Amino acid sequence: MTQLLRVQNFNVSRDGIAAGADQTLERPFGLDRPERLFAWAGATASWPRRTDPGGSRGLDDYFTRDFDHNIGAEIMGRNKFGPQRGPWNDDAWRGWWGDEPPFHTPVFVLTHHERPSFTLSDTTFHFVGGDPATVLERAREAARGKDVRLGGGVTTIRQFLDADLVDTLHIAVSPVDLGSGLRLWDSSDDLLDRFHREVVPSPSGVTHHVFWRR
Amino acid sequence: MTQLLRVQNFNVSRDGIAAGADQTLERPFGLDRPERLFAWAGATASWPRRTDPGGSRGLDDYFTRDFDHNIGAEIMGRNKFGPQRGPWNDDAWRGWWGDEPPFHTPVFVLTHHERPSFTLSDTTFHFVGGDPATVLERAREAARGKDVRLGGGVTTIRQFLDADLVDTLHIAVSPVDLGSGLRLWDSSDDLLDRFHREVVPSPSGVTHHVFWRR
Repeated sequence: MTQLLRVQNFNVSRDGIAAGADQTLERPFGLDRPERLFAWAGATASWPRRTDPGGSRGLDDYFTRDFDHNIGAEIMGRNKFGPQRGPWNDDAWRGWWGDEPPFHTPVFVLTHHERPSFTLSDTTFHFVGGDPATVLERAREAARGKDVRLGGGVTTIRQFLDADLVDTLHIAVSPVDLGSGLRLWDSSDDLLDRFHREVVPSPSGVTHHVFWRR
Repeated sequence: MTQLLRVQNFNVSRDGIAAGADQTLERPFGLDRPERLFAWAGATASWPRRTDPGGSRGLDDYFTRDFDHNIGAEIMGRNKFGPQRGPWNDDAWRGWWGDEPPFHTPVFVLTHHERPSFTLSDTTFHFVGGDPATVLERAREAARGKDVRLGGGVTTIRQFLDADLVDTLHIAVSPVDLGSGLRLWDSSDDLLDRFHREVVPSPSGVTHHVFWRR
């Protein structure tokens, strides 16, 4: 069975922006009201952070419930893991997600700076350098036959796209323009040279762009 | 965690028909060219019966790959299991699916006639009578916390809808009219009194109708 590298439930604005340029501890996405991007996901029954019952089980829920389906590991950029830059001053920062991170698999955090692995609940974070192909090889091994999720952010996704390592992408385009920030693409058409694409509007207002390798 | 009863990837024609009235060993669906109904599913990468690599990974694939996601048991009508009627003359018939049925869970076959359970690969078939609520209770227990799939056919789905036991439905409406046969509904609107609905057209030509309880 092929082990795919999959981008899942990655949110961008109509103008292709996923985050502001200035990330801080208080603003993990560097955006005012980042929920403008991902409110669609929070409204679904399968949203991993849902604490109350209910939620929709329509089209959008197929995407949120697929988030961890057959996923055995995640690769994420350092800025998805935290707001720090440069060498790790201490190991106190353990991610944005509290004691129960929503990953439930090994997670490989890209960084040039060494740091020991640690485990929170059923998620273990490893800190790895090296080129994308080498990191993917490690993640595939850890995934034990399952697929690997490429968690973002934008810089990380572009890096793996440039190395032609991404097999599928699901990008949720929200009906808001942000103007400036970290941009995934100028247009969704940018990926058509290498990927099939389907564009699926949801009743929630978000539009799902689904890509798979030609 | 709630254990849902889910109808998944059930195919009907534009005029609501899922099968012909006359099922035979040679025509399990009682239809000429039943692939007119479910060709969309066979074209996806995650179709369980796919033997060659490839296949689409767009919208339709989200539906086929959700088929067994968090499913711990299936309930099916006797006619989905086989073409025989009345008492089991012998136990030679073991379903349409060969030695590797695509269910991988306990399957509860509705019948008024007793027959011993048997196992093929990782699927065990049980033969059960009783009202829908009782059968569902047995299937939920066997599913060990996971959801239960209601596999069809039409008569079985309608029976469980009448008993108000169905939590979600995914019905794929194919762009073909069949005129006569076993009809799931006069119109998809029939379910709106009890269910939310989203109607999602796919580039393949099929239209996905997704329902969840109000």
